[in-house]
Amino acid sequence: MTQSNFLRARSTAAKQQREDAILLSAQKLALAQGVRGVTLTDIAADIGMHKSALLRYFETREAIFLHLAKDAWSEWSHAAKAQLDALSAQGVRNPSGAAAHVLSATLAQRPLFCDLLAHVPLNLERGVSIPAVKDFKVTAIAAAGQVATALEKTLDLPSPATWNVVSTATAMAGALWQMAAPGTELRALYESDPELAHAIVDVEPRLNDIITALINGYTSDGNI
Amino acid sequence: MTQSNFLRARSTAAKQQREDAILLSAQKLALAQGVRGVTLTDIAADIGMHKSALLRYFETREAIFLHLAKDAWSEWSHAAKAQLDALSAQGVRNPSGAAAHVLSATLAQRPLFCDLLAHVPLNLERGVSIPAVKDFKVTAIAAAGQVATALEKTLDLPSPATWNVVSTATAMAGALWQMAAPGTELRALYESDPELAHAIVDVEPRLNDIITALINGYTSDGNI
Repeated sequence: MTQSNFLRARSTAAKQQREDAILLSAQKLALAQGVRGVTLTDIAADIGMHKSALLRYFETREAIFLHLAKDAWSEWSHAAKAQLDALSAQGVRNPSGAAAHVLSATLAQRPLFCDLLAHVPLNLERGVSIPAVKDFKVTAIAAAGQVATALEKTLDLPSPATWNVVSTATAMAGALWQMAAPGTELRALYESDPELAHAIVDVEPRLNDIITALINGYTSDGNI
Repeated sequence: MTQSNFLRARSTAAKQQREDAILLSAQKLALAQGVRGVTLTDIAADIGMHKSALLRYFETREAIFLHLAKDAWSEWSHAAKAQLDALSAQGVRNPSGAAAHVLSATLAQRPLFCDLLAHVPLNLERGVSIPAVKDFKVTAIAAAGQVATALEKTLDLPSPATWNVVSTATAMAGALWQMAAPGTELRALYESDPELAHAIVDVEPRLNDIITALINGYTSDGNI
């Protein structure tokens, strides 16, 4: 290795290490206080880096969270696909209910992904450059496609329906989570007042009920 | 009428007039450029009022949009209920498909409501006082309840299912609309690239497909 190659490698590795530290800090802070409340200043303070230095790694706050959303899509897709493939292999008796359970449980177990899902179209895709949106979107579509294909196999359901199931599961996970994440001031308000009881949302059972009905509707061919 | 009563009435009427002007301006600006982009400064400039004067009528930008969201819930609920009640009265042959069509069409015809629906839990309920959230929430729950009750009658479906249909229809309308509102830069990006074709969303047909399957799933008792 020549000296210049060595220096480049070292600087690439150092750059990667810095990026990883930024992403890890953003993830930790977002899990603790929600994506909405985390600023660039918070992340910079957490890792002891100056804000202007941080901006050399990510163009905006939104770019950091869009990167986390991209990783979260891949990670979720991998987990959901593996569980759906296992259902196909086992030949379970009620694949609709089992598949709905896989989707709702894997999503509800990932509060940061749920939080990010609502922020992506509303905020994150707007605060970054077009190549960054494209990079995110290509990964997210591939990840959704993996789950849709696994559903096709498990449920013997045609392709547009499986995409709608994945879109609905992920969008509803995002929406339901925002409506009443436990521990928020809003949740406390809803619980304090009988008039607001309908606003209380328990993400996993509600999501499971909706996705089960949706899959049943599609597998019944819509001819009922 | 005594003079003081007269003055009070005049000032109440004037206050109401100012509030209406602020709401109308926010509505117009949000329809033109999306809720996300409209600032207090834009609204103040549009109606020729100083920003500090505007803050005497609404505590924050979010309070203005939460008020619009409250009105939009009531207006949509009224329209959807009337059309669902008409279906019951007519005794249509396929009430599931017809009811799904009522929900998706009435929502897609209201782009500002769709836009607001995604902003409510994420941003609007967080930027206002607790009494303002409660005022909004009580109205929104009552409005959703009117539609759920109308669905119960039209589809002969029990209550938790009808609430889930209303929640899913409104949350998905909000999510799908954000994903690819026509005319946005994001939509143009998606259309320019075959790899991103799956990101293109036509709100009404997609929503109709999902709500039809969901209702069919619930009316088939989930035993398929």
